[in-house]
Amino acid sequence: MRTLTDDNLNIHQVTFRDRWSFRESIEGMASHGIHQTAVWRDKLHEAGVDESARILRDNGMRVSSICPVGLLTASDQRGFQANLDDNRRAIEEAVTIDAPCLNFLSGGLPPDSKDIDSARAQALEALSVLVPEARAAGIRMGIEPLHPMVCSFRAVLCTLEQTNDWCDQLNADDTVGVVVDTYHIWWDPNMAREITRAGDRICAFHINDWLEDTEDVRLDRGMMGDGVIDIPSIRKMVEDTGYDGPPEVEIFSAKNWWRRDPNEVIRIIKERYQTFV
Amino acid sequence: MRTLTDDNLNIHQVTFRDRWSFRESIEGMASHGIHQTAVWRDKLHEAGVDESARILRDNGMRVSSICPVGLLTASDQRGFQANLDDNRRAIEEAVTIDAPCLNFLSGGLPPDSKDIDSARAQALEALSVLVPEARAAGIRMGIEPLHPMVCSFRAVLCTLEQTNDWCDQLNADDTVGVVVDTYHIWWDPNMAREITRAGDRICAFHINDWLEDTEDVRLDRGMMGDGVIDIPSIRKMVEDTGYDGPPEVEIFSAKNWWRRDPNEVIRIIKERYQTFV
Repeated sequence: MRTLTDDNLNIHQVTFRDRWSFRESIEGMASHGIHQTAVWRDKLHEAGVDESARILRDNGMRVSSICPVGLLTASDQRGFQANLDDNRRAIEEAVTIDAPCLNFLSGGLPPDSKDIDSARAQALEALSVLVPEARAAGIRMGIEPLHPMVCSFRAVLCTLEQTNDWCDQLNADDTVGVVVDTYHIWWDPNMAREITRAGDRICAFHINDWLEDTEDVRLDRGMMGDGVIDIPSIRKMVEDTGYDGPPEVEIFSAKNWWRRDPNEVIRIIKERYQTFV
Repeated sequence: MRTLTDDNLNIHQVTFRDRWSFRESIEGMASHGIHQTAVWRDKLHEAGVDESARILRDNGMRVSSICPVGLLTASDQRGFQANLDDNRRAIEEAVTIDAPCLNFLSGGLPPDSKDIDSARAQALEALSVLVPEARAAGIRMGIEPLHPMVCSFRAVLCTLEQTNDWCDQLNADDTVGVVVDTYHIWWDPNMAREITRAGDRICAFHINDWLEDTEDVRLDRGMMGDGVIDIPSIRKMVEDTGYDGPPEVEIFSAKNWWRRDPNEVIRIIKERYQTFV
């Protein structure tokens, strides 16, 4: 496997969500020598897209993607079209801040719906509309399956296998990529096979850990090394496909990491990056 | 689909876990005309196996299974053998209380282990040892995959596909069955295919619901109708395989249903059974 260095470390802006604004997070990471990030869309809007572009440029920050986009499932055609339009704005935002990729989540079940097949069909239909528009703008769509425990409200796209199937059905060029996140797939009996199948479609590799005493289905992810995921073995599978981007640290942690001093969080990430990734 | 009647209703004893003892739950269900249950093993031990057999007989209660058994993964050979022995006792208990089936969970990762492949191999090895012993005793082993969110501490067996694969690898007769639980599989893109594949191996069909605002990864299941699972469509898939046992209500709910008056819980189950199953 490759040697990991701080030069090759990407930390998602959301890892500091509750402590740092857009500007603070970009300047803060840069001050620690971190020059790669994924931008969180809420923070981008808070700071303003043009101002964000300036902040990123001024700090020599390379953006891997904007997270999250997609979330397309809706109760009716009007809501669906509104969601499509929002994704079109995200494509423009990506162009403005020089982000090569949008991190796409399918969305969960529409309100009051129990029809998971229709929700899946809707998300796939949305992708078939958006992919040509992303291609025309030179932006990649990185499709990410999420853990089944957030299926109902966040992503009816639950597995890497399903993601690869969707890629096949979209019959797309490399405009469509696959996002591999250790948290979402570590349990999957088909993980190794489907990472290999994703192959050169893999456009991002997110890392974080599964805590044994997980207390929240969305906002209680662990720092690498604090949980049960064998991250190095998954990294090897991903790198064996030829993927040569950096692992991207993405930690949703309302009760722990989001409360801590971000400077301390970065120091710990750097340590764990050398020992548990 | 079949018409559901109270005669064809099975409620797992665990649904009243915090309010009713073994005897209270059996007598209580019988007083409401419920004469089928799955026995919870902790409660069986509290009451004593012979006494439990008497209580069940006196109340005309038919037992579908003892839950949970298995949980076999261990850090070392000694722990593994101890777990096997515990499962052998469960086989004897099933004979004593006239339960035709043991509800088998694989167990999670052993303490301090991140080696999910080995844990899976260990659970499968244990099954290969136990299945002939269960067969000799006339007891069926019902293998149940659990939701991936409890993979680390409860079941490295996560999907129906994996369960069907294990059944194939065990190359067993009908001593080995498959337990389908709506809660654990509703999100799975391969659910329909794998229910069909399980076919006449299906030996139990557990029902309950997924709450959108789930607050605990194990003990916050919903009553049928309170969540997002399309239970009737899953029941149809199961019945289309020829399964003709009753749906079995199994609700783990530390903060809600386990606190309520069990008589009220039974009344609500009977209502929901007619409308949301």
